[in-house]
Amino acid sequence: VRPIVLFNQILIVGVGLIGGSIGLDVQRKKLAKKVVGCGRTQHNLNIALKRGIIDEATSHLEEVIEGSDCILLCTPVKSLEQQIPLLAQRASKGTLVMDVGSTKEDIVRLAEKHFQDGISFIGAHPLAGTEKSGALGAEEHLFDGARCILTPASGVSNKMIGVAHRFWESLGMVVQNMDPREHDRALAATSHLPHMAAYALMSVIGKTLDINEISKFAGGGLKDTTRIAASPAEMWRDICLDNSKPLVSVLKKYHSEIEKLFTMIEGSESDKLLKYFDQISNLRRQLNK
Amino acid sequence: VRPIVLFNQILIVGVGLIGGSIGLDVQRKKLAKKVVGCGRTQHNLNIALKRGIIDEATSHLEEVIEGSDCILLCTPVKSLEQQIPLLAQRASKGTLVMDVGSTKEDIVRLAEKHFQDGISFIGAHPLAGTEKSGALGAEEHLFDGARCILTPASGVSNKMIGVAHRFWESLGMVVQNMDPREHDRALAATSHLPHMAAYALMSVIGKTLDINEISKFAGGGLKDTTRIAASPAEMWRDICLDNSKPLVSVLKKYHSEIEKLFTMIEGSESDKLLKYFDQISNLRRQLNK
Repeated sequence: VRPIVLFNQILIVGVGLIGGSIGLDVQRKKLAKKVVGCGRTQHNLNIALKRGIIDEATSHLEEVIEGSDCILLCTPVKSLEQQIPLLAQRASKGTLVMDVGSTKEDIVRLAEKHFQDGISFIGAHPLAGTEKSGALGAEEHLFDGARCILTPASGVSNKMIGVAHRFWESLGMVVQNMDPREHDRALAATSHLPHMAAYALMSVIGKTLDINEISKFAGGGLKDTTRIAASPAEMWRDICLDNSKPLVSVLKKYHSEIEKLFTMIEGSESDKLLKYFDQISNLRRQLNK
Repeated sequence: VRPIVLFNQILIVGVGLIGGSIGLDVQRKKLAKKVVGCGRTQHNLNIALKRGIIDEATSHLEEVIEGSDCILLCTPVKSLEQQIPLLAQRASKGTLVMDVGSTKEDIVRLAEKHFQDGISFIGAHPLAGTEKSGALGAEEHLFDGARCILTPASGVSNKMIGVAHRFWESLGMVVQNMDPREHDRALAATSHLPHMAAYALMSVIGKTLDINEISKFAGGGLKDTTRIAASPAEMWRDICLDNSKPLVSVLKKYHSEIEKLFTMIEGSESDKLLKYFDQISNLRRQLNK
């Protein structure tokens, strides 16, 4: 995809890891004439300005909505409940609004409730990230080759959906549309559950050994499995509350699976354990690294 | 540490990921005049010969014990139960025998039972590895900068312990002695539990979605947390059985932790969740990547 200027002014609300990394790529690929950043702390906005992520910064969302023809909501999902009604009042006709949150059903329903015709809301979930945070953590090429799932609100035109595809593809992503509910169920298993498993794992290890002992014995396995336990607490609190039903359902399956495992070990069920590990390792080898 | 020739002949029993990687570094650093490999399948031994990991190959352990002044046992831990009595019969006086297994108490007790004076057994646990296996998976520099824990059998001389330190340090490792029981308890938390968590996670995800869907949605988080679920089944069956008590104990703690987590989510306990994730992510950030 050869990038072209898609927007006059992109407004990034929340210039953190994702918002900041989008900003870097938008600037590098010249996808917008101007990038405005909105955030809570001046310190983070200053970093974003200094790194060339944004051209202009503000902490007053209401002042920068009108001139923006693309608004990207990159703050934790709960804060969108305040932002969306404000955008619905102030955004100009023809504006494309997208969020980048990890859960999609609730936010699409909220957007459908608030946005009248003329403003297009498309939920977006770029499946990329690191455990870093803030504008300081933003990276170029973060989205390269990764998948982006779009969940358009009902009534959004095919033309606008095409623009959204074009935007994420310009960042190097493989884009597909999906039903928001189906998205949330799949992601509960493939993303939210692994995060919960990692948090719980780090918690148990932290209760068993002190940090010096952990550091001493930490091999690649421990580091890999707990890397995402360094993820921002606020974001994951919101995801848990927002996608609680599908998440609790897979967490309960996981809970039973752990019980099954220690029951096999306690019973010295050698053949069963071998078969269990063998089937799972074969499955895992079908995924790339 | 400037490497020198430490042994006339090193015998590597089991030329897999660990044994093979040791072989590569021993050859590169010229730590032994000759490296002999012993294994079950000719196919794997041929790969080891072709890659220059070993100078000579055999599938008959009894034939190559005598001429070796260092014997490294690199097969799954259960098979050592056959190998150690055989070594006790045939090994020459002055031989250093080390294993590389992930559990240490049982093997040190077994070695103490069988080896008479003149043969020194030192349990070794190099905290390095990948999810690969076989001589094909062996890599140079695998041990560089990683930690190696030594658990000498009682009665082993300080001189031999010094030789063992020298050997692992020559592979670039940070070496320390430890009580075998203390080792097993610590590793149950820092290594064995993360492997169980990863296997169980991959299992649950595999029951929830098919492999195509998993591949579609697999971000870095899923891949990181489940990478070690591709580890060899036989090895992990053996570790579970060999270290069952400390492992079951931490697995039960983990089981309760998962329950605590879904109880907070089900109860929408926003503040508790935030505090929980916040404490854990702070702890994880104290570990390096």
